[in-house]
Amino acid sequence: MTYGYIASMKTQPGSRDEVVCILLSGVDGLREAGCHLYVVSVSDDDDATIWVTEVWESKGHHDASLELPETKAAIGKAMPMLTGEFTRQELSVMGGLGL
Amino acid sequence: MTYGYIASMKTQPGSRDEVVCILLSGVDGLREAGCHLYVVSVSDDDDATIWVTEVWESKGHHDASLELPETKAAIGKAMPMLTGEFTRQELSVMGGLGL
Repeated sequence: MTYGYIASMKTQPGSRDEVVCILLSGVDGLREAGCHLYVVSVSDDDDATIWVTEVWESKGHHDASLELPETKAAIGKAMPMLTGEFTRQELSVMGGLGL
Repeated sequence: MTYGYIASMKTQPGSRDEVVCILLSGVDGLREAGCHLYVVSVSDDDDATIWVTEVWESKGHHDASLELPETKAAIGKAMPMLTGEFTRQELSVMGGLGL
């Protein structure tokens, strides 16, 4: 059973698209870190919020990825553009299509 | 840009795992209906809630899938086991890994 994670983050006015770019810039290295799925989404009726859905080999793989230099650099770059309002939900993935 | 959907539903006490099975039982037909991703998850610290993350070719494909006989049958079967408490978020998928 793999580890799932659904998070949202609020961005400063006008910063959403730049943060989306930062979140997508590190995607290439995720697979070898144990990531099965990483989806970055926005809503047409909310120009400040970004949703990220992730599926990882395990919680350990996810936690370890946060310590990678490229992850830390991306977080450092995005942080000033975030308001500090987050939601997060840790999950156990039961199955589905496309995983 | 594909259409994303993150939903949660609350189940009646003791019914969560059965509803998960119903949600996963129709997965085979989803791809030809235009579904790219369909992930069913639960949380270790909440034995009543199910989270579903979906990515579709378009909103039209998603909406049409709700009219399929097998979808209607699954909804009818699960409905008595749900409390009626839902959350839903429609999204535009910007990119990621594993799609």
